[in-house]
Amino acid sequence: MITSARRAEARKVCDAERATGATVGFVPTMGALHDGHRSLIRRARTQTAFVVVSIFVNPAQFGPHEDLDAYPRTMEADLTACDTEGVDLVFHPDAAEMYPDPSRTSVHVSGLTETMEGAQRPGHFDGVTLVCAKLFSVVGPCRAYFGRKDAQQLRVIRQLVDDLDLPVEIVGCETVRDADGLALSSRNAYLSPGERARALALPRALRALADGADLADARAILGGVDVDYLEIVNPDTLEPTDRRPALACAAIRVGGTRLIDNVSLP
Amino acid sequence: MITSARRAEARKVCDAERATGATVGFVPTMGALHDGHRSLIRRARTQTAFVVVSIFVNPAQFGPHEDLDAYPRTMEADLTACDTEGVDLVFHPDAAEMYPDPSRTSVHVSGLTETMEGAQRPGHFDGVTLVCAKLFSVVGPCRAYFGRKDAQQLRVIRQLVDDLDLPVEIVGCETVRDADGLALSSRNAYLSPGERARALALPRALRALADGADLADARAILGGVDVDYLEIVNPDTLEPTDRRPALACAAIRVGGTRLIDNVSLP
Repeated sequence: MITSARRAEARKVCDAERATGATVGFVPTMGALHDGHRSLIRRARTQTAFVVVSIFVNPAQFGPHEDLDAYPRTMEADLTACDTEGVDLVFHPDAAEMYPDPSRTSVHVSGLTETMEGAQRPGHFDGVTLVCAKLFSVVGPCRAYFGRKDAQQLRVIRQLVDDLDLPVEIVGCETVRDADGLALSSRNAYLSPGERARALALPRALRALADGADLADARAILGGVDVDYLEIVNPDTLEPTDRRPALACAAIRVGGTRLIDNVSLP
Repeated sequence: MITSARRAEARKVCDAERATGATVGFVPTMGALHDGHRSLIRRARTQTAFVVVSIFVNPAQFGPHEDLDAYPRTMEADLTACDTEGVDLVFHPDAAEMYPDPSRTSVHVSGLTETMEGAQRPGHFDGVTLVCAKLFSVVGPCRAYFGRKDAQQLRVIRQLVDDLDLPVEIVGCETVRDADGLALSSRNAYLSPGERARALALPRALRALADGADLADARAILGGVDVDYLEIVNPDTLEPTDRRPALACAAIRVGGTRLIDNVSLP
C-alpha cells in the first residue's frame, strides 16, 4: 500500500496506473474509518483495479461553530484498516497541502443545497463540492463511492458530476448500521452510552416511516431528542413530497452530537 | 480530422488517444477562427501529439443584452482552417448538448472577476469558468492554449486550474495583430472601415503606455471612442498599480462593437 500526503505524488501514482489501463476507484473520507467506510472500500475493490482512499478532514465543509477541532482523527488505525482492505493508495494531505492559498474558486450547487443539511450548515456543501472537485482532479477516478447515509451529499455530488461533465461514475452505497440500528458514523464516537440509547430514536423513527407511519408518529418517536429536521423528500429534487418513492431524512442532536440518517420510502 | 458534436464521443476519442500515451493539446474557441486562433493551434501542434479544437459559442458567457445572436458563425471555414492546421479533433457541440439542463452548478472565481471585463459584463466570467471546467472534463487535455488578448480571462482560468487542481497546463500565447496594429478578434468583423480606423486608437494608446506615456496621454489618444475602462494593473492580482511590470488593459466601444486589448508594461 502506497501512502502520500502530496497532491503531485498521488496524481503521479494514479496517472501511472491509468496509463497501464487500470481502472481507478476512489473512496473519499475524513478518516475515523468504520465499517461503513470499509463497505465502500470493498465495493471499490470488487469494481476497480486500483483503489484509492483519501483521508482529509476538510476544513472548508465545517462551519465556524462546528466540530472541526474535535473531529476524531485515528490515522494509525485508518491506515491499518486500509491495508487490511487491500487499498492501493492512501492520499492523506493536510490542509496546507490541499489549500496552499485560500481558494478563490467556489463551486456551488444551487437548488439542492438550501434545505436540510444546507439550511442547518451554511456553506457546508460548498466545502464538500470544492474538495470533491479537487480530489477528483488529483485522483482521476473512474468511479467514486459515497455512502447513502449522506443522502443529500450524494445527490449534490451527482449534480456536480453531471453539470461539470466530470468523467467519474458516482456509486451510492447502502448505509451500514450497528446491530441496534444506529447508522455508522464517525461522530457516534462522541456519544455516551445514555446518549446512544436516546439516539436510537433516529433509526426507529425512520424505520417507522418506512413501515407506513406518518410524520406525526415519527415526530413522537423523536420526542426525547432535539430534531434539526425531519422531512420526506423527492429523491431527485430533495423537495418535500407526498408522493412515493421518497426519502425520509432527519437530523437530530443528542447532547453535543449531531447525527443524520435517512431511509427510502418505496 | 475527426469532428464530433457529442460530449461522449469526443471524450471517447480523447480517452483513446491518452490511453496510447499521446499528449492532448486543447484550444477552446467560439469559432469564427482567425490567425490568432491559428497561432494557438500551431503552438498546440508543436507541443502535443493530439490537438483538439472546440467550437462552441457559449451562451453562458454572454449577458442578456450582448451579441450572442449576432456573434459570427463560420463553421465551414473554421473546419477548413482546422484541417489545414492539422487539428486532430474538432468538438463542436450545440447549446443543448453542452447544457441539456440548466446547470445548477456554478463555478465562480472571486477577486479577479469584479473589475474590467467582470465589471462591464456581469456573469461573463462565471460563464467562462463553467464552460472551461466542462470542456476540460470532456477533453482531458494536458495543455490548453489561451490568447493573451483576453488577459483577464487567462488569469481567471489559471486561478480556476490552480484552485481545483485541474491536471492541465495553461499556456498563454501572444496576441496576434493585423498590420495596422489592431489585435485580431472575431468581433473585428463587425467594424465598418471608418469604425476600424477609429478603433486603431486602442492599440495606439496601449502602445504609447508601453513606450512610457502616462494614462492621461493614453486617454487623449482614446478621445474619439467610448472607453469602457483603461487600467494599469498588477498581472497577478489585476488590481490597479503604479509598479512595474504591469498590464495595461482597455476596452472600447466603436459603433456597436466592443473591443478589448492589453499590453505588457515591463
